[in-house]
Amino acid sequence: MKKVSISIFGATGSVGTTTLDIIRQDPDKFRIKVLTSYGNTEKLISLAKEFNPELICIGNTKDYKLISKDINSKKIRCLVGREGLLDCAKEKTDVVVAGIVGLAGLEPLIESIKNSKTICIANKECFVSAGSLIMREAKLRKVKIIPLDSEHSAIFQILESNKNPIDKVYLTASGGPFYGLTNEELLNVTPSDAIKNPNWKMGKKISVDSATLMNKGLEIIEAKYLFNLSEEEIKVLIHRQSIAHGIVSFKNKSILGSFGEPDMKHPIKFALYWPNFYEDNSKSLNIEALSNLTFENINDDNFHALRLVRSILRSNDENLQVILNAANELAVRAFLDKRINFLDILVVVEDAIEYVSSSLGSGNFDKNRDLEYILDLDNLSRVKIEELISQRF
Amino acid sequence: MKKVSISIFGATGSVGTTTLDIIRQDPDKFRIKVLTSYGNTEKLISLAKEFNPELICIGNTKDYKLISKDINSKKIRCLVGREGLLDCAKEKTDVVVAGIVGLAGLEPLIESIKNSKTICIANKECFVSAGSLIMREAKLRKVKIIPLDSEHSAIFQILESNKNPIDKVYLTASGGPFYGLTNEELLNVTPSDAIKNPNWKMGKKISVDSATLMNKGLEIIEAKYLFNLSEEEIKVLIHRQSIAHGIVSFKNKSILGSFGEPDMKHPIKFALYWPNFYEDNSKSLNIEALSNLTFENINDDNFHALRLVRSILRSNDENLQVILNAANELAVRAFLDKRINFLDILVVVEDAIEYVSSSLGSGNFDKNRDLEYILDLDNLSRVKIEELISQRF
Repeated sequence: MKKVSISIFGATGSVGTTTLDIIRQDPDKFRIKVLTSYGNTEKLISLAKEFNPELICIGNTKDYKLISKDINSKKIRCLVGREGLLDCAKEKTDVVVAGIVGLAGLEPLIESIKNSKTICIANKECFVSAGSLIMREAKLRKVKIIPLDSEHSAIFQILESNKNPIDKVYLTASGGPFYGLTNEELLNVTPSDAIKNPNWKMGKKISVDSATLMNKGLEIIEAKYLFNLSEEEIKVLIHRQSIAHGIVSFKNKSILGSFGEPDMKHPIKFALYWPNFYEDNSKSLNIEALSNLTFENINDDNFHALRLVRSILRSNDENLQVILNAANELAVRAFLDKRINFLDILVVVEDAIEYVSSSLGSGNFDKNRDLEYILDLDNLSRVKIEELISQRF
Repeated sequence: MKKVSISIFGATGSVGTTTLDIIRQDPDKFRIKVLTSYGNTEKLISLAKEFNPELICIGNTKDYKLISKDINSKKIRCLVGREGLLDCAKEKTDVVVAGIVGLAGLEPLIESIKNSKTICIANKECFVSAGSLIMREAKLRKVKIIPLDSEHSAIFQILESNKNPIDKVYLTASGGPFYGLTNEELLNVTPSDAIKNPNWKMGKKISVDSATLMNKGLEIIEAKYLFNLSEEEIKVLIHRQSIAHGIVSFKNKSILGSFGEPDMKHPIKFALYWPNFYEDNSKSLNIEALSNLTFENINDDNFHALRLVRSILRSNDENLQVILNAANELAVRAFLDKRINFLDILVVVEDAIEYVSSSLGSGNFDKNRDLEYILDLDNLSRVKIEELISQRF
């Protein structure tokens, strides 16, 4: 049987690592064509030696010579930086795993859509800034976009096969490590506190986003584009146990829920094998684990991140989403760099949206915003947001 | 738009009544062709006047003249008894609701399969005695069989659209009104205690079956045929709240559950409209109702009815299923008639299986047992079971 060719962008991150674990278990099924990493040179070299891809790319230019020399004998082409990433995305591939964090993944993602059949995507920042563009390109080229987020994967699995009209889609939220803490307590939390999620093992950016609940906000936007929903149709449900990954209520009054161990292996494996079936030999969730779960409706207005996201979605101005994402990326980085404290993250984001949008002039909702437009707006926004952070902190 | 023609067997029972309530809400969609009732003459006359079907049939011969005279002016043909039922089933109809209780429904059911496109079935006794025959005939004639049981409807909805290989199908059981009572307490329960189900409004036979848990046993057999499962793939899960109606775990380790208000309107409406969508305007289940549900694995060997059913299924002798059903129908009737007490029901069933199968000689599993064979075996069994009950009580 012909192997499925696969390119992994962000191969040394959390999603990339889990993806490669799955591929290691089924070496006859997959053939790695491309591996990329932003800066984990050592791990990328080791993966290249193990999987023998055609191409690798390191984002960080300074390590290029090192890596190029080390794997020279292997006949693996070795690329670097933004241009290298784009060349990687130009390779014709069956499946692309889009595991780059942040809007840095957008250009290769759009290029990948032109050159692959299935995109398994873990990058919600791209949806926030460019959801319309992504879905439009995918539709045009008949490329299937499969989410890797556990919540969206669960909902994808429910909606893929149930065409009943939807009443509500519920995104479950563990609440993150700080749920229920007071503002006084939150003032002093450190980056290392924030990246400890009680239920999920994840990268730093998403861990901080989980702690601010902005992750759930970004997921609302992701769900809107992935499943073609209105903002009102997407609800957040606090569910501390992370056993229910997605719940959909239909207009016929039936409710379907998807449950399982909180392990990123499951959504990633589902996407990699889609639309084929497979057996997973890991431990089954004991069915009694569905007992005594808790689901709590929340008033999104009481949560800074969700209130912000809802108000942006209601404004119907997709430019604000680009600014939101840029501001959040920079604010999270400033927190991880200990330039600002935890509670400042969302203050910066909210102020930045106001500051950037007023200084740029309010753009109108435009479905045809292209890649260049979005990247320009993102760049401009980042300059202004850095100004703001530097002035204030 | 052409109306969907519909025949309702057992129109005055619980399933029939709910079916007609749904049809009343959407008179432009459905056209009633046939209504039948075993003995509720007054209600059948009233329904005939309301819905103006082409044919009605009363099972009870003594009321025939009465009914025939009363609706004479309406140009409704009025039939009676077994022959009348079979004539009703010979009418070409889009949808048949098979709502007759007990194996009395088998002959019209098999005839209906020959003359309709969709069978909505609430009659699990027919599956117990003739599951192979029903599914074979339906397959041959490309007729869709859609279950009306809430559990099987939920599982049908999950499996219809999810083709992943199945690990386990879970039938949720409320446990009925007597769950947890001691044998001393059970000795004195009356028929009127037994027909009060805490969660579901149902007919007498199924209410008593719920109380003995034989209902869940019969459902295991029904699920085996409907979904082509092995006995080991079907598990019973005690779930007191009746909010989760069906749960399926797949070999990829995902679990899907279907939830909703415990109201027979939902599975019946789903079946009547299948494969089309509809909006139901009744109250939505508050999503927080999924909180604190309980699911309890049980050891089926500790429950008389389930132990019996499992052992019969493992014997792979479908003749024993015919005897099981006949014995259970007669034992439940004897309990409702106050000839035997509650705990005797399953004692009679177990003894009857032993008694009848040894006196008839053990038949071998034969996939081609036809209708006549099954009806003969059922009749013979009933004679012997009556003997047994009369000797003992």
